[in-house]
Amino acid sequence: MADAGWPGCSKSLKGVVLDMCGVLYDSGEGDGVALPGSVEAVKKLKASDLQLRFCTNETQATREKFVAKLQRLGFDICVSEVFSPAPAAVAVLKERGLKPHLLVYDGVLPEFDSVDKTNPNCVVIGDAAEKFSYQNLNEAFRVLINLEKPVLFSLGQGRYYKETDGLKLDVGVYMKALEYACDLKAEVIGKPSPMFFQSVLNDMGLQPSETLMIGDDLVNDVGGAQHCGMKGIQVRTGKYRLTDTSGTRSPAARVCQEEEENMALCEMSPA
Amino acid sequence: MADAGWPGCSKSLKGVVLDMCGVLYDSGEGDGVALPGSVEAVKKLKASDLQLRFCTNETQATREKFVAKLQRLGFDICVSEVFSPAPAAVAVLKERGLKPHLLVYDGVLPEFDSVDKTNPNCVVIGDAAEKFSYQNLNEAFRVLINLEKPVLFSLGQGRYYKETDGLKLDVGVYMKALEYACDLKAEVIGKPSPMFFQSVLNDMGLQPSETLMIGDDLVNDVGGAQHCGMKGIQVRTGKYRLTDTSGTRSPAARVCQEEEENMALCEMSPA
Repeated sequence: MADAGWPGCSKSLKGVVLDMCGVLYDSGEGDGVALPGSVEAVKKLKASDLQLRFCTNETQATREKFVAKLQRLGFDICVSEVFSPAPAAVAVLKERGLKPHLLVYDGVLPEFDSVDKTNPNCVVIGDAAEKFSYQNLNEAFRVLINLEKPVLFSLGQGRYYKETDGLKLDVGVYMKALEYACDLKAEVIGKPSPMFFQSVLNDMGLQPSETLMIGDDLVNDVGGAQHCGMKGIQVRTGKYRLTDTSGTRSPAARVCQEEEENMALCEMSPA
Repeated sequence: MADAGWPGCSKSLKGVVLDMCGVLYDSGEGDGVALPGSVEAVKKLKASDLQLRFCTNETQATREKFVAKLQRLGFDICVSEVFSPAPAAVAVLKERGLKPHLLVYDGVLPEFDSVDKTNPNCVVIGDAAEKFSYQNLNEAFRVLINLEKPVLFSLGQGRYYKETDGLKLDVGVYMKALEYACDLKAEVIGKPSPMFFQSVLNDMGLQPSETLMIGDDLVNDVGGAQHCGMKGIQVRTGKYRLTDTSGTRSPAARVCQEEEENMALCEMSPA
């Protein structure tokens, strides 16, 4: 692959982890739209000697439906390559014997089919979008406030994401809302949780230093990966905004100055 | 008045400020319900030589409609005795030449009739309850995120309040949501803002040390008043929960240990 333009990790690089929404495509009505050059970039990465995984905080659909959408957009991708928070949450719930009250998008509900949801003793929130009504948030709040030891799991902690018709509030905003309402700290499942990145590294059999994360979110993609010892690059597509790197509005911008090689995915795929 | 049971301020006490929801009444369907003994307590306070004011973070109705409701519940109360955040916000907006995007309950909209709302350059949120839909919160977010210097005013910062059918999320929860989404700090208008308490003290012509605040919210009523040098007492009605004072869940409980004489308003009105 081409060394030029890759930030100081090309020689040792053995694996690439791609964020999806904002890097491969913009979500929106129907399937959304693939970003120019991204289908080809994935094809080139797959043809290279690098391992490739996809790591998303997408929680509006099951992995199966989500991958089918990406395939319709033209991407060469399969379910086993994709890491998302809902299956990771199910594993945690079962391990700890917890029964969730779910405030998630209808599309992701089947992921939780195998979990006992009677007499809930914790709350799980995902990117519920329109389901984040006052009534539904109040219902989740009442479950938490009536528990002796309230436990809140948040499938990601993103602030907002980009759809074809503009920026939309993400699950992290409602996580902060419930944290404040109940005076508690949520447990984040998904990016930037180190456990989540580690599960991807384990699957590839690679060390963090051999792996590069590419995403459009400075905190959850780039910062989260760097926190684990991985390399991180932010693309200039998706939710990227000029102020991410100007330092005037987002202190998070500074965490990845070293890696700051912002560009679209298609510009930095291997030759 | 009876000295016994009053926490160390009865001799110098010249004025009482009462919170309303949870102290005088529980809100709910229709007008809600007056708390037992509260109508008589207000009557006795008015017959005493103490000055009396009402200080609410209520933002679901104009002061006129709100006071009419309290009158129907049997309270001896008039508009000029009531301090609420919306009129205070209007004063701040005009002073700073700001044009608000409003995310408030329909009932309070008339308070903002005199304010220019074209091309908004700030956002004002109140206790919008069911109007806190995903769509409306997203709309407020988009106004803020597109401003060069985003300004968010929150009419109070309460976590939750009690209606006749249970606890409900308050405006502070959505303030935290937008603060996180936009990486900003909101300006709170209403309790516990010192400016808000000072305006009540000015109206009574009293010093903070001569004045007692009675409320059901440890942080916004009791803590806010104490921060201004006033005395503060928490009642055991409204949103009061045992954990408020146990120290296991609410660190705020400790701010008012000195004044901790929790009881219903009717138990502590002057003889």
